[in-house]
Amino acid sequence: MKKINTSPLSGMQELLPAQQATFDKLKSSIATTFHSHGFLNIETPVIDRTEILLSKAGGDTEKQIYRVTKTEAAKDSADQALRFDHTVPLARYVVQHMNDLAFPFHATQIGRNYRGERAQKGRFREFYQCDVDIVGRGTLPVAYDAKAIATVYNALKSFDLPTMRIRISNRKVLSGFLAALDLSDQSATISSIIDHAEKLPPAATIEALQNLQIPNDTIAKITAFINTNGTPEDIQSSLTSILDDLTPLQPGLTELYTVYNLLTEYGLGNNATIDLMIVRGLDYYTGTVFETFLPDYRAIGSIASGGRYDNLANNFTDQPLPGVGGSIGLTRLFYILEQHHLLRTSTAKPIDIAIIPISPNEYSYAIRLADQLQSRGKSVDIIFTDRKLSDKLNYAARIASHGIVIGETEVQSNNIQIKNFTTGTTAPLVLN
Amino acid sequence: MKKINTSPLSGMQELLPAQQATFDKLKSSIATTFHSHGFLNIETPVIDRTEILLSKAGGDTEKQIYRVTKTEAAKDSADQALRFDHTVPLARYVVQHMNDLAFPFHATQIGRNYRGERAQKGRFREFYQCDVDIVGRGTLPVAYDAKAIATVYNALKSFDLPTMRIRISNRKVLSGFLAALDLSDQSATISSIIDHAEKLPPAATIEALQNLQIPNDTIAKITAFINTNGTPEDIQSSLTSILDDLTPLQPGLTELYTVYNLLTEYGLGNNATIDLMIVRGLDYYTGTVFETFLPDYRAIGSIASGGRYDNLANNFTDQPLPGVGGSIGLTRLFYILEQHHLLRTSTAKPIDIAIIPISPNEYSYAIRLADQLQSRGKSVDIIFTDRKLSDKLNYAARIASHGIVIGETEVQSNNIQIKNFTTGTTAPLVLN
Repeated sequence: MKKINTSPLSGMQELLPAQQATFDKLKSSIATTFHSHGFLNIETPVIDRTEILLSKAGGDTEKQIYRVTKTEAAKDSADQALRFDHTVPLARYVVQHMNDLAFPFHATQIGRNYRGERAQKGRFREFYQCDVDIVGRGTLPVAYDAKAIATVYNALKSFDLPTMRIRISNRKVLSGFLAALDLSDQSATISSIIDHAEKLPPAATIEALQNLQIPNDTIAKITAFINTNGTPEDIQSSLTSILDDLTPLQPGLTELYTVYNLLTEYGLGNNATIDLMIVRGLDYYTGTVFETFLPDYRAIGSIASGGRYDNLANNFTDQPLPGVGGSIGLTRLFYILEQHHLLRTSTAKPIDIAIIPISPNEYSYAIRLADQLQSRGKSVDIIFTDRKLSDKLNYAARIASHGIVIGETEVQSNNIQIKNFTTGTTAPLVLN
Repeated sequence: MKKINTSPLSGMQELLPAQQATFDKLKSSIATTFHSHGFLNIETPVIDRTEILLSKAGGDTEKQIYRVTKTEAAKDSADQALRFDHTVPLARYVVQHMNDLAFPFHATQIGRNYRGERAQKGRFREFYQCDVDIVGRGTLPVAYDAKAIATVYNALKSFDLPTMRIRISNRKVLSGFLAALDLSDQSATISSIIDHAEKLPPAATIEALQNLQIPNDTIAKITAFINTNGTPEDIQSSLTSILDDLTPLQPGLTELYTVYNLLTEYGLGNNATIDLMIVRGLDYYTGTVFETFLPDYRAIGSIASGGRYDNLANNFTDQPLPGVGGSIGLTRLFYILEQHHLLRTSTAKPIDIAIIPISPNEYSYAIRLADQLQSRGKSVDIIFTDRKLSDKLNYAARIASHGIVIGETEVQSNNIQIKNFTTGTTAPLVLN
């Protein structure tokens, strides 16, 4: 027989059933939290027009997008590709269905996206993203920014992780600051330097700024700005010591403090902090930006992030659709949590009860008993294999937490014992 | 602005939030039933090696498969395509992870698959399939066939559909019958004629058989065979009147009656019937086959089907892996049920409670109240829009079943009224 490689393709996460059960629990807990915060689930197709998908793309997206070859049967279709995030399909969805949606539209999308990234450990080409987005028609008050962030935070909180910290900032504060320094025309380059500052030694950041011919005293101000974090009081006092006049920063600071204060109301307390180093790489953020970290595991990087965009769909419609969103990269997060042993892996077996009929004479009884247990919410397997009882019991103990053996005696007496495979104890089965 | 087509691609099902909620409820109810019957969820990548996916393909599959172009960044990968069903990836998964699985392995897969079928109403190119499969190592008793069928039946039963009928047969009965008629060498052609018999007038089927140079008295026997259905007693008496010697059919009949009788134990009663017209088009079925119909809506065709395959993965391993599986095509089923108004569309609003703070002064109170209600399992939206109260109430009534207005008075008195938008009545809010 020709040897075929049966491993999944590079960059694909494929889990064993027990891992999958843990993964599914996290996913379902995110979905429940999102819904409890007033978000409605939608699903967009994984395949979409390349024209749509690349309408907002920049940087590496075009290189990483998976293009799909039209099949012989589906020749009628346009050029198509696999979606690389949920935001672009959301923009198309909102424009397409605008008259059927209630605005501000609260959408959640939990699904797989595709990016042909360079293969490396912990990076995936097929990955789940769990997104919340709030899209307004015309306007969208900044209080929704806090709602989106709090929703993501509460979803992650249900994981029972170590301490989390959400770091928030606002793009308008940075642009106001650069305007005050007369550096607006180098805004994109400087933003990118700040975005990378955390991962580099301070000297490297200073050198990068020096390469832009920025004078040293201005660089000192930028460095002080980057290292500004804490409560609104901390920010205010730090900025006042850097700049004489905060007027250009005021619109951004007002939004930022509003979001921070609402997050306090949402119960985030010390877990939310303002941090002016947070920029977010993507161009389309225009106001609030946030990233989420586990302070005890800084090397992991951000586990959830997002922000405010002034116009979700300006490539598809003239109608202004401001929005704010957040995203949990669940495939990568699951991988990281597993690597760091941060997943509360349940020792519970996947199935509650395995019923073992000794011979086909007991099948009928076993099936009816399974039905009774299932209607009480139990997951029940019936073992029909033609094996020795000891083999069946070994299999049962591997898949289920409890076992019930049904023989001639049990059928006649209706006297059923249930064995707990963990403790080894046996007790009469009580159905109530 | 350049006009971009924002409709989804042809063959993609894209639902509005209320439809999506109904769809999600069906999907989750299938998942719950599958798990309660002892099946473990797994997820295989949507993208896989073309070599794997086409290893078992025949007929139209190769024309319909979506091939994926390697991206610039992921050049290292093999030729790849999108999976068109769950069975081939399951075969790869079982071989790849064989030493980590407990056999008989009970797998469920609920996910999207891709086929570039010719575009037509009610046919989808991206579609959910909800599969159960039981895979044995070496052998797998026929009782598992009944378990797989009963699991699919119970999953559909949770939909609250009109009367369902599961029609079962066994490939070995047909092959024994054709052997008895000395027609084994034309088995494939005759199977295909029988497979299409239901959709054609009887004369067309007779003509197709006459074209094979089959004598008229033999054709009469085949026609009688096709029209044989009912209980094992019915089958036995019908077959005895067609053939003198049932010996060649016996292995198949024994399996078929065993499965039928176990389905009775599983509570299917009159909803399961033996029907020798059921063949299933796919080559790989070797024993039990089944299809599911709504007798009051015959034109819909089969809504779930499956069967026994002797060897799941003979292209990947020499190890015999017999299995039995069933599949619900949920995307098509949802479309059909909606078309025929067979979905119990809930009149319930997607969100339980909308909280409407009158001004930002009430945000803090509103957020804390939402948290209390959420911790009691409610889905709660807070409306932060800067609109007139009447506009906010209109929006609230559109998305939520209940509304709570929070103004200065409510904050001071802590006296909260909740309005039922359906009945129009208002009552004091009681948190318990």
